[in-house]
Amino acid sequence: MSRHVHKRSRKSGLPPGSLIHIGEKKAERTKITIIDYDEKNFEVKEAKTVEECFPFKETATVTWINVDGVHDDEIIGKMGGHFGVHPLILEDIMNTAQRPKLEDMGDYLFIVLRMISFAGKKKGILSEQVSLIVGPNFIISFQEGEGDVFDPVRERIRSGKGRLRKMGPDYLAYALIDAIVDNYFLILEKFGEQVEILEEELVSDPGRRTIQALHTLKREIIYLRKSVWPLREVISGLERSGSCLIKESTGIFLRDVYDHTIQVIDTIETYRDMLSGMLDIYLSSVSNRMNEIMKVLTIIATIFIPLTFIAGIYGMNFDFMPELNWRWGYFAVLALMAGIGVFMLIYFRRKKWL
Amino acid sequence: MSRHVHKRSRKSGLPPGSLIHIGEKKAERTKITIIDYDEKNFEVKEAKTVEECFPFKETATVTWINVDGVHDDEIIGKMGGHFGVHPLILEDIMNTAQRPKLEDMGDYLFIVLRMISFAGKKKGILSEQVSLIVGPNFIISFQEGEGDVFDPVRERIRSGKGRLRKMGPDYLAYALIDAIVDNYFLILEKFGEQVEILEEELVSDPGRRTIQALHTLKREIIYLRKSVWPLREVISGLERSGSCLIKESTGIFLRDVYDHTIQVIDTIETYRDMLSGMLDIYLSSVSNRMNEIMKVLTIIATIFIPLTFIAGIYGMNFDFMPELNWRWGYFAVLALMAGIGVFMLIYFRRKKWL
Amino acid sequence: MSRHVHKRSRKSGLPPGSLIHIGEKKAERTKITIIDYDEKNFEVKEAKTVEECFPFKETATVTWINVDGVHDDEIIGKMGGHFGVHPLILEDIMNTAQRPKLEDMGDYLFIVLRMISFAGKKKGILSEQVSLIVGPNFIISFQEGEGDVFDPVRERIRSGKGRLRKMGPDYLAYALIDAIVDNYFLILEKFGEQVEILEEELVSDPGRRTIQALHTLKREIIYLRKSVWPLREVISGLERSGSCLIKESTGIFLRDVYDHTIQVIDTIETYRDMLSGMLDIYLSSVSNRMNEIMKVLTIIATIFIPLTFIAGIYGMNFDFMPELNWRWGYFAVLALMAGIGVFMLIYFRRKKWL
Amino acid sequence: MSRHVHKRSRKSGLPPGSLIHIGEKKAERTKITIIDYDEKNFEVKEAKTVEECFPFKETATVTWINVDGVHDDEIIGKMGGHFGVHPLILEDIMNTAQRPKLEDMGDYLFIVLRMISFAGKKKGILSEQVSLIVGPNFIISFQEGEGDVFDPVRERIRSGKGRLRKMGPDYLAYALIDAIVDNYFLILEKFGEQVEILEEELVSDPGRRTIQALHTLKREIIYLRKSVWPLREVISGLERSGSCLIKESTGIFLRDVYDHTIQVIDTIETYRDMLSGMLDIYLSSVSNRMNEIMKVLTIIATIFIPLTFIAGIYGMNFDFMPELNWRWGYFAVLALMAGIGVFMLIYFRRKKWL
Amino acid sequence: MSRHVHKRSRKSGLPPGSLIHIGEKKAERTKITIIDYDEKNFEVKEAKTVEECFPFKETATVTWINVDGVHDDEIIGKMGGHFGVHPLILEDIMNTAQRPKLEDMGDYLFIVLRMISFAGKKKGILSEQVSLIVGPNFIISFQEGEGDVFDPVRERIRSGKGRLRKMGPDYLAYALIDAIVDNYFLILEKFGEQVEILEEELVSDPGRRTIQALHTLKREIIYLRKSVWPLREVISGLERSGSCLIKESTGIFLRDVYDHTIQVIDTIETYRDMLSGMLDIYLSSVSNRMNEIMKVLTIIATIFIPLTFIAGIYGMNFDFMPELNWRWGYFAVLALMAGIGVFMLIYFRRKKWL
Repeated sequence: MSRHVHKRSRKSGLPPGSLIHIGEKKAERTKITIIDYDEKNFEVKEAKTVEECFPFKETATVTWINVDGVHDDEIIGKMGGHFGVHPLILEDIMNTAQRPKLEDMGDYLFIVLRMISFAGKKKGILSEQVSLIVGPNFIISFQEGEGDVFDPVRERIRSGKGRLRKMGPDYLAYALIDAIVDNYFLILEKFGEQVEILEEELVSDPGRRTIQALHTLKREIIYLRKSVWPLREVISGLERSGSCLIKESTGIFLRDVYDHTIQVIDTIETYRDMLSGMLDIYLSSVSNRMNEIMKVLTIIATIFIPLTFIAGIYGMNFDFMPELNWRWGYFAVLALMAGIGVFMLIYFRRKKWL
Repeated sequence: MSRHVHKRSRKSGLPPGSLIHIGEKKAERTKITIIDYDEKNFEVKEAKTVEECFPFKETATVTWINVDGVHDDEIIGKMGGHFGVHPLILEDIMNTAQRPKLEDMGDYLFIVLRMISFAGKKKGILSEQVSLIVGPNFIISFQEGEGDVFDPVRERIRSGKGRLRKMGPDYLAYALIDAIVDNYFLILEKFGEQVEILEEELVSDPGRRTIQALHTLKREIIYLRKSVWPLREVISGLERSGSCLIKESTGIFLRDVYDHTIQVIDTIETYRDMLSGMLDIYLSSVSNRMNEIMKVLTIIATIFIPLTFIAGIYGMNFDFMPELNWRWGYFAVLALMAGIGVFMLIYFRRKKWL
Repeated sequence: MSRHVHKRSRKSGLPPGSLIHIGEKKAERTKITIIDYDEKNFEVKEAKTVEECFPFKETATVTWINVDGVHDDEIIGKMGGHFGVHPLILEDIMNTAQRPKLEDMGDYLFIVLRMISFAGKKKGILSEQVSLIVGPNFIISFQEGEGDVFDPVRERIRSGKGRLRKMGPDYLAYALIDAIVDNYFLILEKFGEQVEILEEELVSDPGRRTIQALHTLKREIIYLRKSVWPLREVISGLERSGSCLIKESTGIFLRDVYDHTIQVIDTIETYRDMLSGMLDIYLSSVSNRMNEIMKVLTIIATIFIPLTFIAGIYGMNFDFMPELNWRWGYFAVLALMAGIGVFMLIYFRRKKWL
Repeated sequence: MSRHVHKRSRKSGLPPGSLIHIGEKKAERTKITIIDYDEKNFEVKEAKTVEECFPFKETATVTWINVDGVHDDEIIGKMGGHFGVHPLILEDIMNTAQRPKLEDMGDYLFIVLRMISFAGKKKGILSEQVSLIVGPNFIISFQEGEGDVFDPVRERIRSGKGRLRKMGPDYLAYALIDAIVDNYFLILEKFGEQVEILEEELVSDPGRRTIQALHTLKREIIYLRKSVWPLREVISGLERSGSCLIKESTGIFLRDVYDHTIQVIDTIETYRDMLSGMLDIYLSSVSNRMNEIMKVLTIIATIFIPLTFIAGIYGMNFDFMPELNWRWGYFAVLALMAGIGVFMLIYFRRKKWL
Repeated sequence: MSRHVHKRSRKSGLPPGSLIHIGEKKAERTKITIIDYDEKNFEVKEAKTVEECFPFKETATVTWINVDGVHDDEIIGKMGGHFGVHPLILEDIMNTAQRPKLEDMGDYLFIVLRMISFAGKKKGILSEQVSLIVGPNFIISFQEGEGDVFDPVRERIRSGKGRLRKMGPDYLAYALIDAIVDNYFLILEKFGEQVEILEEELVSDPGRRTIQALHTLKREIIYLRKSVWPLREVISGLERSGSCLIKESTGIFLRDVYDHTIQVIDTIETYRDMLSGMLDIYLSSVSNRMNEIMKVLTIIATIFIPLTFIAGIYGMNFDFMPELNWRWGYFAVLALMAGIGVFMLIYFRRKKWL
């Protein structure tokens, strides 16, 4: 879990607005992609320098500038400078340990989201910070590294089908948020498969490893919950912000993605409950097994300890032990022992210990 | 429980408003039934095509269009198109993993409810999504499959007794919600019977199966709670919506069904408490039983171990062991053993271990 | 506890306002008593038919109509019809599974309360629904059966002492609520006695029966809590209702009974905490006892097992075992055994196991 | 704990405002002390009859009438009658089971506080009800018995130093509340000492008595919390009451005592957490000890049981057992036994059981 | 933990505003440092007497007076007197057991913060109270002892880089708060390292010491949480205070430090969850180990007890035991024993106990 706690001591003592990257460096170099469109035109290109983005600030078309890699303070600084982004916001973009949040800066909105990916059974769930600057005719999105969940959105812009090309940057912002939330469902399904596998393992062959896996999943789900929970407020904040950057017609779409977020949280809670229940079942099955073992020990011991005692008596070497000279003494003792054993078995059965 | 978590990954990446059915397909074909009535007239018919429903949008009578089966995007799409339902709402109707909710769309209200049914001891509790479109003179209800709890409502419309025929679609909406809530009581009674059976089993013969059954019931009740809990807000939202679609006279009825919902939730909480208490009783009874077994082991062992030791001493083969040659040595040792045994029994009794 | 969950499936599917009695039938026939008074006059009589009550609707005096038995839909229906009570309210009166609640119907207030009685150690706590219709010059109270806690109120009306005769039906309503809340204190004292008895039993002689009694008390207190908790809102609702049926001068009395309710809830919480603490003590005392038993087993076993082993060695029948021929071999072995035993006892004492 | 639950059944059924003393009678006779002062004058006297207090209602000076003993309904009744106190308030004064509360009666404020004292390790924490009537130029304080925490306040009035003599009864009320809250810190320190002693005992020599002491302290802290918690609202209510009886200049002092109350609650929570943590440590130390004992048993038993079995084999009396006749058979068996023992010890050590 | 509970009984009974130092005396003498600056000028000096500070109250420049040591009531009193600080505020400054809080006194703001330091693994986390008086053109900061986290702020003032020199005392206040919050991240990283070390210890070699360390860390984190939690309200209070002492331009910086505080709290919660999870893992690993030991005991015992019994039988000394005279009797018995042993091993393996 320690990987979920970011180190940010490097920043301690610096003045506010210092552009220091906090988090793992996930990309070698910063890659900037520009998608510019309106209802009729569509253009996509990769920018070689930050300056190539600058003209798009003024155009009437909608421009989506996507920045992969937030570790380069120079690029982030220049970009922020031209588009009029406050230094504290730039600091937040580079510090990738933010919770999801929304800030209305008047000229633009600043949205922080967390994009989740599933890095296999060992590594578990990873999260990446996505920051959006939503301006009057542009969106700048910052991601920690390449590879994201926005390809369907790009495809919808390219194809020109649907509403996307006809609407402004607020709808594009919605589409990006929706893509991220949709992706949560995929992650949750994969998570759910793991939970089911674990549940079967718990029934068939529980062991120390199962309990560790259970605790790992529990931690993952708590981490996931922390990433998703504040998103509710972000989206409902967007809907009710009253900012002129969000058109009224986008409201219903935001409400829709809000409902999806609630569903995601609901599912997370369901998995949490399931995992808690599984821990209970594990513990009670362990104690059941323990009891069963103890019962066998008790029964074996309580039957044979008295019998062994009897055998011990007739193993004594006293000169005068009349039973030893009896003709049927040996067989009488054997019969006695068998009798005691049978009596005990009946007693145990009646006590329902068998 | 995994059946309570819906797969919706098929939808990931699609634009909003895409009509994709999510959930189990519960009906082969979509069946549309039209009930049209006012205070004097009553008509019921099954529509063969969607288009047959269209004229009823304009009539002065109250029309209830019931659609069984929400997997056919064409039918849902056409229906929605004619009655002016927003694509996102249609998406919600086809995605059967919704929580109960209410949306006031101005021209119409959209209500999502969950209808519960009890599918036997093995399968437990199932829930089905019921979506209502409440317009100014019509209601369209969408169900996942055939078979519902609305027959008493249909019967009351047919018979013409009571208020139902005299009132508008808002009252019909209330009647449908009331039918669903009333059904919860039935489900809870069946659930209660299972709880009682389990309680008796717990006292008479608790085992590993009992604890599993306990956990299953616990999950069911949590699932039930999640289905019912948001209903409170839906109904109180309806009552206070201020929508002109809800007449003031319907307010008291909504308040009544609200009270019933609170009662349902109360009962659910009661069962939850009972199940938790039963788990406690189970655990303490298991540990009591364990203690009893341990006590028997201890008593048998602590009595016979020293006695066996004494027998062992006189079983040694030393050449010179004076006691062995004594005339009454054997009997003296037997007496000593009996004495030790009796002493220990008294000691244990005084310690209240017996 | 199942007796605290009411069966109301009989009602399922009926139209709202259907007068169906839900709950146990606690009285054979319905008994109606009329108390009519103002500052100077006082009259009490038993009504043979419902119709006898009707004239009192119009009189200037304060009238208290008390109805024992709510299973007869005809009587309740007629009564409600004449006094203008809404059918849904009548339904609530007959359905005796209501939570305490307050409804302001404009012309009258509808109050549901729960009257608690203590039916002996076996049966525990029972609750009965009391419904009040508070009109401008009358109160109609409905009880499930005969026998109530209102006798002091009747006595105060009869005697004419105190404020009661000088004030309106709102003060009478207060007096009835106050009588019910006062009765809670009595019940809680009886409950408290049971808790104390159980606490002593827990210290002196805890067993399986104690734990069952503990769980029963816990359930009772949870049930009690559910009956009393909503009362807070009812009373504070009355005080702040702004209804013209509640005179301002009654406000301070309502605040007083509100304080008492808070005290009742406080006491209930105290008992809940006590019972939880008692469960903890029980469990730790059981595990302490278990530990003690285990210690004895361990000490006896660990001392005698090695000694028995030594005896076993010299019980072997090898031809050549030099120790066996030694003159003092037997006594040397006995001394060795005693030495090992003493050493072990010292070791255990130092480890604080003894 | 039962002493913390007051018996008030004597009151059941009486009309509201009946002056019945509830609680332990802590003083033989009622003692009334009058302190009258303004900036220049100061007078203190003990009143022999209630009537002596009456003139002070009208004087321009500030008068503090302190009543020790609230069991005498006549005195309380007369006092209340003259100073215009509502009968319900008088009832609350005599019923010493009140929670802290504030009531603004227009002409005067009614404040209930709980004064805590520490009655030694056996008796634990006791609480006494202090009721204040804050009028425009007088304060009447009611205590259950003699002996209180107000001596420093009296001393400050007498000495005339500080603000107290220059200010009105609202400041005196503040001073009294402050004295009570200050006293909480003293009680908490004593409590803290007990917690520390217990903590040491828990580490050095935990036993059944320790756990009982732990539960007692837990109860005390819960009781303390219940006495202090509502005080927050009382004080913040005073500050924001808007009553003309509270001068604005007193606001900052009330805010100060409010902060102290928060500190008291914080400390109480800290002790609660500490006690909970101590219970956890106790339980895990008990189970650790248990495990240690079990380990010793297991090791002794698993080593000696197989060895004893071998000895048993060669103790059999078969005619033909070739090993018995071997020259070094005995020593070979001894060597075998030693080997098995050593092997097992190594095995256990490797398993980290030793 | 007792060191986290301050003794303040010395203050009991004193009038409000009495300047009594509560807490540990952390500095021998009080040291006063004055930093005076505006955009162009910068001056720093150590004041030998309090009076040296007085002229700075009137200057147009921003003055930061830092007082190390709050135990000297004379110095604090004089300082407060000249700068017009209310006696109750001075009392709060000297009583170092305050929670973080904000008070708007009109002319100045009073802010209490807690500065955390990490005093090594043994001593754990220590906290020191920092009080700020924010006036129109000055800040007075009070610390318990020398050594703080403000050096970067001093450096930024000295160097004149960044915003600090251009802005007013409100920005300086922000900078000081930010320095304290930034320091929390450092402390949390150190704490995190301890948690990780403990986690490894828990897996590799858990013991009684581990559990004690776990509880210590848990207490530290609870203590930390209590110190940080109220800071949220302080900062959001500052932001929304509407005080003219806080310029609007500072708002965004306060929002930024607010976000950091939320991150700190988030991290604290994460550690709390981790520690709770670790306790669960510890307990289940202890019980797993216990089970393993019990299993070995059971298997050894259940195999050898019956075998020993058989050996005991043939060790009996009856005259007539036919088996003893058989030629292969001994070997037959050995074979029988081996058979029983193997059978039991197979049985156990099938039961999955091995």
